[in-house]
Amino acid sequence: MQLNDPVLLKEVTEAFYAYEAALMTDDIPAMDRLFRDGPETVRYGVGEVLYGIEAIRAFRLGRGGSPQRRLGRVEITVYGETFATANAEFFRDGSQKRGRQSQAWVKFPDGWKVVSAHVSIEGATS
Amino acid sequence: MQLNDPVLLKEVTEAFYAYEAALMTDDIPAMDRLFRDGPETVRYGVGEVLYGIEAIRAFRLGRGGSPQRRLGRVEITVYGETFATANAEFFRDGSQKRGRQSQAWVKFPDGWKVVSAHVSIEGATS
Repeated sequence: MQLNDPVLLKEVTEAFYAYEAALMTDDIPAMDRLFRDGPETVRYGVGEVLYGIEAIRAFRLGRGGSPQRRLGRVEITVYGETFATANAEFFRDGSQKRGRQSQAWVKFPDGWKVVSAHVSIEGATS
Repeated sequence: MQLNDPVLLKEVTEAFYAYEAALMTDDIPAMDRLFRDGPETVRYGVGEVLYGIEAIRAFRLGRGGSPQRRLGRVEITVYGETFATANAEFFRDGSQKRGRQSQAWVKFPDGWKVVSAHVSIEGATS
């Protein structure tokens, strides 16, 4: 299995940053286009557990936008021709704690989509 | 792209529960066999950020075992022939908070391996 085919890595990296831009501007249609439209899509947020695209959409509509943040280390790896992982550290404005975002991306006929996402703040053990 | 081919779903589900059993018994060789041996493998734990299998191995050796836990809802989805996501809720002994574990699995010639994992406790927003 080839890792990090350069064309695919460029594609998914662009999709990753397009999602980040959409998140920061609360562009819900753009976020929606970058998540797979299916009941299997999962998003674990810092404070919520969402199963299926409908639950994810409802959360976004009610959220009023994400806290602003800057990215730290970003690691994207493409496995084969249709799958990639994107792991990123982030720092929310006003917080010293490190956030972490993991996404699983799959390439469908209409482009790369997140099928699973997990966001958390490091160090909360209790 | 086919979702949840039954043979593949069975394979990755067995791998998922094999990992859980290894985690609960601190069977480090078994855990190691179920993670991809590569510098791209990422594990975000509740309190740590680990890039590459060597960092993951060092953490496991020094950890003294995971807290005991029981699983809640588990959602595994296979996308195509070589990729799956496994998302699981868990509850650690003595804690009322919900934990969440997300894994990305890739099928290599020597079997299904985790290439990215993220573990966190829900609700830590500060």
